[in-house]
Amino acid sequence: MRDVAMVGAGMIPFGELFDQSIKDMVSGAFAATLASVDKGMPVGDIQAAWFGEVQSVDGFPAGLLADTCGLLDIPVTRVENACATGNDAIRNALYAVGGGYVDVALVVGTDKVRDTSAASTFWDWMSTNRDMAWDLPLGLISPASFALHVARYMHEFGATREHLARVVVKNHRNGARNPYAHLRFEVSMEQVLNAPPVVEPFGLLDCVPQSDGAAGVLLVSRDVVDRYTDKPVWVRGVGTGMDRIMHAHKTDLSSFAATRKAAKQAFAMAGIGPQDIDVAEVHDCFSGVEMMTYEDLGFCDRGEAPRLLEKEETSIGGRIPVNPSGGLKSKGHPPGATGVAQCTELFEQLRGDAVNQVDGARWALAHNVGGPTAVSAITILEGPRG
Amino acid sequence: MRDVAMVGAGMIPFGELFDQSIKDMVSGAFAATLASVDKGMPVGDIQAAWFGEVQSVDGFPAGLLADTCGLLDIPVTRVENACATGNDAIRNALYAVGGGYVDVALVVGTDKVRDTSAASTFWDWMSTNRDMAWDLPLGLISPASFALHVARYMHEFGATREHLARVVVKNHRNGARNPYAHLRFEVSMEQVLNAPPVVEPFGLLDCVPQSDGAAGVLLVSRDVVDRYTDKPVWVRGVGTGMDRIMHAHKTDLSSFAATRKAAKQAFAMAGIGPQDIDVAEVHDCFSGVEMMTYEDLGFCDRGEAPRLLEKEETSIGGRIPVNPSGGLKSKGHPPGATGVAQCTELFEQLRGDAVNQVDGARWALAHNVGGPTAVSAITILEGPRG
Repeated sequence: MRDVAMVGAGMIPFGELFDQSIKDMVSGAFAATLASVDKGMPVGDIQAAWFGEVQSVDGFPAGLLADTCGLLDIPVTRVENACATGNDAIRNALYAVGGGYVDVALVVGTDKVRDTSAASTFWDWMSTNRDMAWDLPLGLISPASFALHVARYMHEFGATREHLARVVVKNHRNGARNPYAHLRFEVSMEQVLNAPPVVEPFGLLDCVPQSDGAAGVLLVSRDVVDRYTDKPVWVRGVGTGMDRIMHAHKTDLSSFAATRKAAKQAFAMAGIGPQDIDVAEVHDCFSGVEMMTYEDLGFCDRGEAPRLLEKEETSIGGRIPVNPSGGLKSKGHPPGATGVAQCTELFEQLRGDAVNQVDGARWALAHNVGGPTAVSAITILEGPRG
Repeated sequence: MRDVAMVGAGMIPFGELFDQSIKDMVSGAFAATLASVDKGMPVGDIQAAWFGEVQSVDGFPAGLLADTCGLLDIPVTRVENACATGNDAIRNALYAVGGGYVDVALVVGTDKVRDTSAASTFWDWMSTNRDMAWDLPLGLISPASFALHVARYMHEFGATREHLARVVVKNHRNGARNPYAHLRFEVSMEQVLNAPPVVEPFGLLDCVPQSDGAAGVLLVSRDVVDRYTDKPVWVRGVGTGMDRIMHAHKTDLSSFAATRKAAKQAFAMAGIGPQDIDVAEVHDCFSGVEMMTYEDLGFCDRGEAPRLLEKEETSIGGRIPVNPSGGLKSKGHPPGATGVAQCTELFEQLRGDAVNQVDGARWALAHNVGGPTAVSAITILEGPRG
């Protein structure tokens, strides 16, 4: 196994991109990713690509990346793993680079959620992305299935809607300053708590927006890293964890078992622990999910996540800033792109170039959890000083 | 990079499996795959899995494999690459095993084409799996898009519908003896030539059936191969090639550029050439595609493919038997499973256990071509004597 470096990372601004086809979005993210490489990279250096897309709305996914970006002489694989697609695509690319099969790999993630084709929509996917016989008829689509977890956590540990709102206020504060964010405005505690209800305990502002977007990263082996940059970010750990699909089969709703498994793999591979992480992008598809994930990632002890929020330890300037990009909540959530865009943010953080910079960050962690809370993917990065 | 061996391969009989859910199909293929390991394999030995599925009809794909097969403590990734999904999933698993990240990997491929859920069908996917703005309105769905290639080839090289029919007769002859085949009957030249037309030059019997099915293989590193078998099959080469999506952009319809690119990669990795292949499973989704692929794989010179069929060189007992399993044409074609099932057949061929055994076969090749003729994936295997 060879060390693998991230030498480029870029994205297009997320939003309701009715003015862009998915081809525009993908080629925009590819161009931004190439442009981020310090010493430049000829397209011909790329030897393989992975394309993270949850639901296709045009073309066929792998071909769409190859054809749109002029990558017709290399293998392209589509990876789909629900909302964990982005970080799982990076994991697959890492195996090929670290394993010695290719020196330079591209990962692009995208989804077009707000725009649909005649025959296939993102929401077709959403409705099948769970057990069709039992959970779907119960209404356990995404907000409801996450709400079961968060409600149980609140019951067990005394967390309140105010704690959830703290996540929202924090992430919107960060996202308001991020030019790539979908929802670039701040919100107050009162606005969050008084927003129309979606599903108990979530109001409208506890929920992620529906976003279109695309992002990319370039992974290279240590052997060739000097060609592209003197400030590489190292991919030190990857992990993908699974859980039961049906909520009736989950043994503890106050935690996300998939996240715990992914974290265990990624930390073991990186040879570090949660206490070493300086900055994290965490899957805040719903406010309480970020809060619960602090514990599943080991950022604090069991039941202590509400205290982290009270002490603002996950705000910029706190002990372990989470979602300096604005998170899914403010930056937006095109599922195939989300994990890749988290790594774009962390690439900038670790090189000291981020909009909401976390001073001196060396170790960073990107986290997705998705499907019917049944999959998580995590990437651990180390900055150029590593 | 470490040598990678296939130590197990299994499948369920393909067909119209209205009596089985996709969970039944997947768990059936997994059980058959485990049962094929000579010295047995505890489920706990499997360290990662790849799931090839073109279109989900229940659950979410990676979770469906994990949950149904009790693989909840390992990473599972869904790979989708149109009809090349199966062999591309094997390529991704090979990177992880050969790269040293895992010692034992499972690949399962499946699709449920004849059964649909309320919200998502295989045919939704089929209609989006091409350029939606230009090619779909022209009616360039799968049979028509392949027909453009075959018609052009026939025009340039003087091939006839009789040549195409020879492919069909050969593959049904093989498939009639294969207990895992969907269409277990022989057909005559007259039946093929007189079948109702689908799209020029294809009649109904030139076309693949719509099949449900699932298949699996187990890949392990050389370091642990002795635990599982004394007759490993070695995965020597993999390749995935791409082509333009729109037919107006393809420079030569008398060939499949994606196949040529995939073959070049796979042969280079294996360190052999087409003349070394003893038996092949080739993507005969339409009769003429198999014929043209003889040339794209290098089994004969340009324009010579009709001669191979006239001389029965690709029949059992010929110089290079193709599709001893019956091929997609008779065995059936659940797209996500097809490439994996090709390797199941070749695993048995190389170990001397096949129903239609090719005597003394040492090198084998599995080939998919799909999407709007825009992707190909190839796996090259070497038998235990290698």
